[in-house]
Amino acid sequence: MQPEDSPALRALYASFEAEHLIPLWTQIDDLMPVHPRPKAVPHVWKWSHLLPLAERSGALVPVGRGGERRAIGLANPGLGGRPYVSPTLWAAIQYLGPRETAPEHRHSQNAFRFVVEGEGVWTVVNGDPVRMSRGDFLLTPGWNFHGHHNTSDKPMAWIDGLDIPFSYQNDVGFFEFGSDRVTDYATPALSRGERLWCHPGLRPLSGLENTVSSPIGAYRWEHTDRALASQLALEDEGFPATAAPGHAAIRYVNPTTGGDVMPTIRAEFHRLRPGSATPQRREVGSSVFQVFEGRGGVVLGGTEHRLEKGDMFVVPSWVPWSLWAEQAFDLFRFSDAPIMERLHFARSHIGADTP
Amino acid sequence: MQPEDSPALRALYASFEAEHLIPLWTQIDDLMPVHPRPKAVPHVWKWSHLLPLAERSGALVPVGRGGERRAIGLANPGLGGRPYVSPTLWAAIQYLGPRETAPEHRHSQNAFRFVVEGEGVWTVVNGDPVRMSRGDFLLTPGWNFHGHHNTSDKPMAWIDGLDIPFSYQNDVGFFEFGSDRVTDYATPALSRGERLWCHPGLRPLSGLENTVSSPIGAYRWEHTDRALASQLALEDEGFPATAAPGHAAIRYVNPTTGGDVMPTIRAEFHRLRPGSATPQRREVGSSVFQVFEGRGGVVLGGTEHRLEKGDMFVVPSWVPWSLWAEQAFDLFRFSDAPIMERLHFARSHIGADTP
Amino acid sequence: MQPEDSPALRALYASFEAEHLIPLWTQIDDLMPVHPRPKAVPHVWKWSHLLPLAERSGALVPVGRGGERRAIGLANPGLGGRPYVSPTLWAAIQYLGPRETAPEHRHSQNAFRFVVEGEGVWTVVNGDPVRMSRGDFLLTPGWNFHGHHNTSDKPMAWIDGLDIPFSYQNDVGFFEFGSDRVTDYATPALSRGERLWCHPGLRPLSGLENTVSSPIGAYRWEHTDRALASQLALEDEGFPATAAPGHAAIRYVNPTTGGDVMPTIRAEFHRLRPGSATPQRREVGSSVFQVFEGRGGVVLGGTEHRLEKGDMFVVPSWVPWSLWAEQAFDLFRFSDAPIMERLHFARSHIGADTP
Amino acid sequence: MQPEDSPALRALYASFEAEHLIPLWTQIDDLMPVHPRPKAVPHVWKWSHLLPLAERSGALVPVGRGGERRAIGLANPGLGGRPYVSPTLWAAIQYLGPRETAPEHRHSQNAFRFVVEGEGVWTVVNGDPVRMSRGDFLLTPGWNFHGHHNTSDKPMAWIDGLDIPFSYQNDVGFFEFGSDRVTDYATPALSRGERLWCHPGLRPLSGLENTVSSPIGAYRWEHTDRALASQLALEDEGFPATAAPGHAAIRYVNPTTGGDVMPTIRAEFHRLRPGSATPQRREVGSSVFQVFEGRGGVVLGGTEHRLEKGDMFVVPSWVPWSLWAEQAFDLFRFSDAPIMERLHFARSHIGADTP
Repeated sequence: MQPEDSPALRALYASFEAEHLIPLWTQIDDLMPVHPRPKAVPHVWKWSHLLPLAERSGALVPVGRGGERRAIGLANPGLGGRPYVSPTLWAAIQYLGPRETAPEHRHSQNAFRFVVEGEGVWTVVNGDPVRMSRGDFLLTPGWNFHGHHNTSDKPMAWIDGLDIPFSYQNDVGFFEFGSDRVTDYATPALSRGERLWCHPGLRPLSGLENTVSSPIGAYRWEHTDRALASQLALEDEGFPATAAPGHAAIRYVNPTTGGDVMPTIRAEFHRLRPGSATPQRREVGSSVFQVFEGRGGVVLGGTEHRLEKGDMFVVPSWVPWSLWAEQAFDLFRFSDAPIMERLHFARSHIGADTP
Repeated sequence: MQPEDSPALRALYASFEAEHLIPLWTQIDDLMPVHPRPKAVPHVWKWSHLLPLAERSGALVPVGRGGERRAIGLANPGLGGRPYVSPTLWAAIQYLGPRETAPEHRHSQNAFRFVVEGEGVWTVVNGDPVRMSRGDFLLTPGWNFHGHHNTSDKPMAWIDGLDIPFSYQNDVGFFEFGSDRVTDYATPALSRGERLWCHPGLRPLSGLENTVSSPIGAYRWEHTDRALASQLALEDEGFPATAAPGHAAIRYVNPTTGGDVMPTIRAEFHRLRPGSATPQRREVGSSVFQVFEGRGGVVLGGTEHRLEKGDMFVVPSWVPWSLWAEQAFDLFRFSDAPIMERLHFARSHIGADTP
Repeated sequence: MQPEDSPALRALYASFEAEHLIPLWTQIDDLMPVHPRPKAVPHVWKWSHLLPLAERSGALVPVGRGGERRAIGLANPGLGGRPYVSPTLWAAIQYLGPRETAPEHRHSQNAFRFVVEGEGVWTVVNGDPVRMSRGDFLLTPGWNFHGHHNTSDKPMAWIDGLDIPFSYQNDVGFFEFGSDRVTDYATPALSRGERLWCHPGLRPLSGLENTVSSPIGAYRWEHTDRALASQLALEDEGFPATAAPGHAAIRYVNPTTGGDVMPTIRAEFHRLRPGSATPQRREVGSSVFQVFEGRGGVVLGGTEHRLEKGDMFVVPSWVPWSLWAEQAFDLFRFSDAPIMERLHFARSHIGADTP
Repeated sequence: MQPEDSPALRALYASFEAEHLIPLWTQIDDLMPVHPRPKAVPHVWKWSHLLPLAERSGALVPVGRGGERRAIGLANPGLGGRPYVSPTLWAAIQYLGPRETAPEHRHSQNAFRFVVEGEGVWTVVNGDPVRMSRGDFLLTPGWNFHGHHNTSDKPMAWIDGLDIPFSYQNDVGFFEFGSDRVTDYATPALSRGERLWCHPGLRPLSGLENTVSSPIGAYRWEHTDRALASQLALEDEGFPATAAPGHAAIRYVNPTTGGDVMPTIRAEFHRLRPGSATPQRREVGSSVFQVFEGRGGVVLGGTEHRLEKGDMFVVPSWVPWSLWAEQAFDLFRFSDAPIMERLHFARSHIGADTP
């Protein structure tokens, strides 16, 4: 139901343009769809392609002040050449050569790292050196100084996740340079934050004020693995413990609140038993998965993709997805769910779509 | 500090593109600025231009199913022709001719109306008819059915505010048609929501569950005006009551929580004494003001604008602004502050910028 | 199942006593009953008895520093001569003769007043004079200085409610004398707190910090009465609004949170239509009611009591109660429900007891 | 300032008594003291006295349905022969002989156990068997079925803490018998709750709903010890980690919220370096300490007490206390602080009293 074309209407529209106005009635179908119609598309990036490109970057691109990080962002093919894996999230592979240092800086954007393989790098967060090893999930929440350095003779690659697109789009970001080197080159097995906070159910009296983001700098693989194995063992013994039959899962949380690790990013780890699958699910908001171990696949927006270690894929808002495991299948996941929940836009639909 | 150009680098960049990857080091200056550098620009829309265009639309553009509303959106000149007053907010002038009805629908997007002049329209929210009159602030929070109808022989115009850009950008919106007519053509002076909820400090026992958005459909001008007048009178009597000397202000709140009326939108009303001014202020997040009454101006990003009744202006993120009043000066304001606060991106700076 | 008596057992028990020990096994039936077995008993105090005693006190007992208040506390007959209406609550009739002043003091204990009849007294809370009139509910939350003075030539009586027994039992109370006179003898119709806060859904920008107790000093009868009348009118029109059919009710709340007015005391007002009754109800925690107007009765622990204006009764924990209205029946209620809810001891049972 | 004695006054007082009324002016000095004046007194119970009495009880007193538990409560000498260690808290030594079972029951009262020495008993909480060993802190929050059984050939003693006095005084308690035996005689090293929840910073997706009390049944000594040792090591390295110099401390928390383990009881563990001491401190609310290991003392209400392993002492409200350590000194502490904080009665004063 649009107005009939006429010279008067065209004159009106020209006046609109002159006055920086746009009518709703010509835009509403696009602006307010019946359900989310993301421009972002489902996409899979293969680790077997990502890692060699990161290695080539290692040879050609220095790391240092200005460029700041040798990080290569996943650019959603639907988002017009922007370095956004989704409208809210940034995901990248970062690469640090032997003995290299990525200088310290801080920014409003919340960041984490997840290590699918390798070791030898320490990230220094507000002066606290944090070891990075396979399976670890590491935090650098907004406005914490951080830099990285590789103590070994081998390069190391990992993934970074941030809320850069959200921050950019909404004009919320501040950025500040720190030391050109990291402020502490010590290489302890455990960071000070872990030593203070990683005792289950125990809170230091020196840390009774709740914090916006988790004070834990590193969530170690040994804990994640044990938590998931325990859930499956409990399921075997007949007790409720898993997220769904055959599907163990944990969420990384802020121990001061029990809530998400950072205000904009949720992170989880999922383990599927061989032969299991998850029901089709749609959710408001976008997610990125990385395969940590095992073999299986995802049906993503109706298309099936086989997945191997290190492969990453993005699930845009309201796109249906389901996982299936050929072998025991371990996946790291992060998403913008805290944004959706805090602003009360979260919705999900499990099962086949209604006609 | 960028890598030196070379055939190998160009080949690497071509490989990135082929694999849907974008390096951080070429983007970081734009992506992660030192402070917010909004693409949105400060801008003023004059009521004396808006209203005649709305009236011309009234003659040329039907209102009904499909187009849904005769609303004309303020398009920030910096946002590339999108109908966004800021990256998060939509602001529009809506116009309803004598005896017209805008059909019912509902959507995830949160909406409000503010009436700078006129009367005669009722908005029907989930079946509850709500009178619209000068100075009233009216809510249609996400997923509530609503339609409007004009009971009088005169047209009426008002402003709409929504979180359409945020919703669009982040793919969170759902939309559903309702009745083609409004479901109740009664024209009570007070809506049922007001009769249940608008008793200061009193909560019905039938409404003890907290709600995400305010259950009050209309915040009446008589209450707003009296609250502001009381603050100034208390100030005259020597008691703390105003936001700052000479500056009375209220926030519209959800009585079940004391917090903002909707999860994404804050609304306030400000009254400045003649001759007073506010200090320069920068804030993360964007705001829109509309002059309700009086005469004065705004210094916005370093440029001074004189303002009259109905004039609207947008303050993009981190752009400095200050108001000054020639006569008693009343302004309605709405913003995306709840988004910034809930996601912990809020920051502000009052006073002259540090060098 | 108790141990058999023997010299050895008696010697053991003597040793317990010598060491300040008491065995659980001899106490458990009393200490941990199957359901609450309050020592407090249901009781009704008739206004026709209370008021003459208050008047006689006016003639014989001075009001001033030391005794502080001419208040006469309701002493639950089951509580061994302590001035406690229940284990948590104090309720009293207070009486102030013409032109008398009760001096200022402050204490940790939370206090309120409710006025069943009369006028002419102002209570001064932290320097803010608050008029007291029929139907008003007035707050003096913990640690606020307060005094009262009678500006008229007639005496005035009202009821006080506090958490004195809870405070005494748990050793939480502090007390401090203030001015021997009230600090402001002005007699404004509205207190400054009301002028700042009593605008429905509007919050002053000068009051954005949430407060433990309500910033409203007086909840006026006109608002309470209108809120209740609106609920019944909405019910007549066919809309959900009342607590139960024929039963309108409001809770007095803190506008900064939507929650109870003070951390330990809940206050409500109930209105029953003529001929209506409430179902039998048991609740954990204790309540006190005062009839404000009308005629009806209460069935309290199985005994029926007819009630008239000013009559007060206490409902100890888990004692069943139901109200019935002969005429339109208005009752003020206060309770310790916030204690029960915050500590997660709240439970209720509606309807006839299960066998 | 009391009224003068007269026949009329005596008649008035007699009328008060007849009507179940008590005047405030004769009571206020006792009822509303300048600061808390607890009837409870500071007291120390020596483990060397407690344990032999528990052993004698083991010989003389059966454990089973009716008596329910072979628990011997600490009776504060100031509380008139009631089995209350303070007005809010119950503390007891419980003793279970070889192969004995204490039957299952549940109650509103929140309970925990702390093990100063021994092993061999499992407590079964809602069917989940939980091993009890030296240094462990174990929960049975309100309304969870629980029983105990000793799997060994040796007796075992531990301490129980509950909110029985609070519950009794305020009439909030419900009680229900369960199985006469425990429902699961398995003796796993870790309970199911621990296997699901005791992974630092990780939350099972099957447990995303927050719970009123902690889902962790046992807080193991190895974690507590490591947390405390880490704090002292960090302090040695020059980083902030301890509650005060030389004073490591943790609070046991609910991992779903980061808050106290149960709504009425706080539990903490404190470790003092040899030669260190804590400043004098007064707090609203009452606490109980038990020495876990080491040697030192407490100055409690001005009196010094030397303390050894197992010794217990109570700190009534607002009584000053300070600890000093001769050797490394480990103490378990529990208190009613959640009550005080949730009801906003909490206050503390550190340092010498002001004159």
